[in-house]
Amino acid sequence: MTKTRVTARAHTNIALIKYWGKRDTELFLPMNSSLSLTLDEFYTDTTVSLIEGNSDQFVLNGELQEIKEINKISQFIDLFRKVAGHQSAIKVESTNHVPTAAGLASSASAFAALGTALNELFELNFDQTTLSTFVRQGSGSATRSIFGGFVEWQMGTKSDGSDSCANKIDNADWNIAMLTIPVNTGKKEISSREGMKLTVETSPFYPAWVEQAGKDLITIKEAISQRDFIRLGEITEANGMKMHGTMLGATPPFSYWEPLTVKVLQRIREIRGLGLPCYYTMDAGPNVKVICQANQADQIKQLLDDTFPNNPTIISGVGRDAYILSAE
Amino acid sequence: MTKTRVTARAHTNIALIKYWGKRDTELFLPMNSSLSLTLDEFYTDTTVSLIEGNSDQFVLNGELQEIKEINKISQFIDLFRKVAGHQSAIKVESTNHVPTAAGLASSASAFAALGTALNELFELNFDQTTLSTFVRQGSGSATRSIFGGFVEWQMGTKSDGSDSCANKIDNADWNIAMLTIPVNTGKKEISSREGMKLTVETSPFYPAWVEQAGKDLITIKEAISQRDFIRLGEITEANGMKMHGTMLGATPPFSYWEPLTVKVLQRIREIRGLGLPCYYTMDAGPNVKVICQANQADQIKQLLDDTFPNNPTIISGVGRDAYILSAE
Repeated sequence: MTKTRVTARAHTNIALIKYWGKRDTELFLPMNSSLSLTLDEFYTDTTVSLIEGNSDQFVLNGELQEIKEINKISQFIDLFRKVAGHQSAIKVESTNHVPTAAGLASSASAFAALGTALNELFELNFDQTTLSTFVRQGSGSATRSIFGGFVEWQMGTKSDGSDSCANKIDNADWNIAMLTIPVNTGKKEISSREGMKLTVETSPFYPAWVEQAGKDLITIKEAISQRDFIRLGEITEANGMKMHGTMLGATPPFSYWEPLTVKVLQRIREIRGLGLPCYYTMDAGPNVKVICQANQADQIKQLLDDTFPNNPTIISGVGRDAYILSAE
Repeated sequence: MTKTRVTARAHTNIALIKYWGKRDTELFLPMNSSLSLTLDEFYTDTTVSLIEGNSDQFVLNGELQEIKEINKISQFIDLFRKVAGHQSAIKVESTNHVPTAAGLASSASAFAALGTALNELFELNFDQTTLSTFVRQGSGSATRSIFGGFVEWQMGTKSDGSDSCANKIDNADWNIAMLTIPVNTGKKEISSREGMKLTVETSPFYPAWVEQAGKDLITIKEAISQRDFIRLGEITEANGMKMHGTMLGATPPFSYWEPLTVKVLQRIREIRGLGLPCYYTMDAGPNVKVICQANQADQIKQLLDDTFPNNPTIISGVGRDAYILSAE
């Protein structure tokens, strides 16, 4: 090993075909394939350094983390150390450029950046797709943050997860943007992990969700290859709402929707009615994301901000692949 | 025929196991059996009289109705005239005691009252269960309003609908009440008829809904026979949310929820957390109905009214069978 300190950047992503439910909770193997758009506005920068001693260190947003957080990171680093045949302790310094006000999860960009940095530090030379199978074991959605543009996470079929990996589908360089309307950025009552588990175990809608997500993936890839924005949007909106429908089918039923969520969804439909194509999706939380055409993003943001002045919309363009910022 | 003028009363009902989807739109044959509670607070009084001439007349809430409305009523009266072998024109005078502010549909009590009155006028002597198969052809949910208490509408299997009928399950005389929290009493964007059709035709969750509704019916009947209020409430809430989940699965997805709907559902869960058992259900609209124990209804209403002073909660007890008020 010739490097002692590497910094990498990875962007967050928003799924258009949702990942919802695990077939293996240890390996983060999903029940269905998913497809996302990587966002340039939200990212994590992570520096990994070789350090003396036996214990890893973890500094997040300038704060030294507690043992529970360090252990999670150490287990993740172990995946790379094992392949590298290296025992060195690592210091991880990570900064999330995902504003709390956006209400987005940062685990996708965080594990993608960490994995990208470790791949370089340990000189493992994993290609991006292989690397995606490693970062998957930190956070499922991190799998997709290895790539920019429209990214597919193929669920795979192998029990060891080696074929549950990401691939870039398209650069998304055809006038695509995404808006984030923060509704509530506080802690959720039900984590996405808990929500997935409850849905998989109790919702009679779940098998149909898995089947439909497979179909939606095929049709959205057609829409992307044809650069058919309207169809892309319609499939995105239908798929996201289906995911939320599975939750109402759970026992007990649950929902991430808040009163303001419903208002925002209504307003998006109104704006669409004005002739501005835009389509919503929601993850396991109350915040709303909207895919739109980049040249109309400012106009749609203005309409939303007029209606929701306390919840300013954030515009994001398309993010690039995870990459190395510096290595020494 | 010895009678010339008959007045009947029928109460509205709220389904705890929902009717959602038709297998025959002409005969109002449902895809699944349902179970309801009849409410004493909301009812329709209907007078039918023999009149001269060839044309039926229809006065609703004191207003002479248009030809479209008269035709619908005439077709319904024809079902009874045919059996009676009678050609007389009929005047129908109907008054809904279902305040607009409650946001409840009045078609269930309206057709149940009309059918009950016609049965008496034409001296058909249908028993209640047979009568329920007739009123079903005016409005599906009217089937259940022939009876008071907890009522099951068995979907039946025959193509002529003769076995798609109601039966009383229980008098519900064990401390049961229902609250109605009106959220929006205006016209809906999507009628329940349209919503059902879109769901049956496009939602991949629909087959699982039908199967689950059958299971829920069995367990709620167990809960009723055991007078287990908590279990009754939990099944009610889960079943209603499942129905709303099927809509999010439709293409395009749709929802009857409004921002205030979500607030009310949150508040009900909070009130339940205070140790007052109460469980919500929703029909094809934004209004919320809550089943609770009658001796706690005032207390729960007060808590709701404190939170939603502009949407006062209406308490209802359990309604009785449809009955004849006068016959001459």
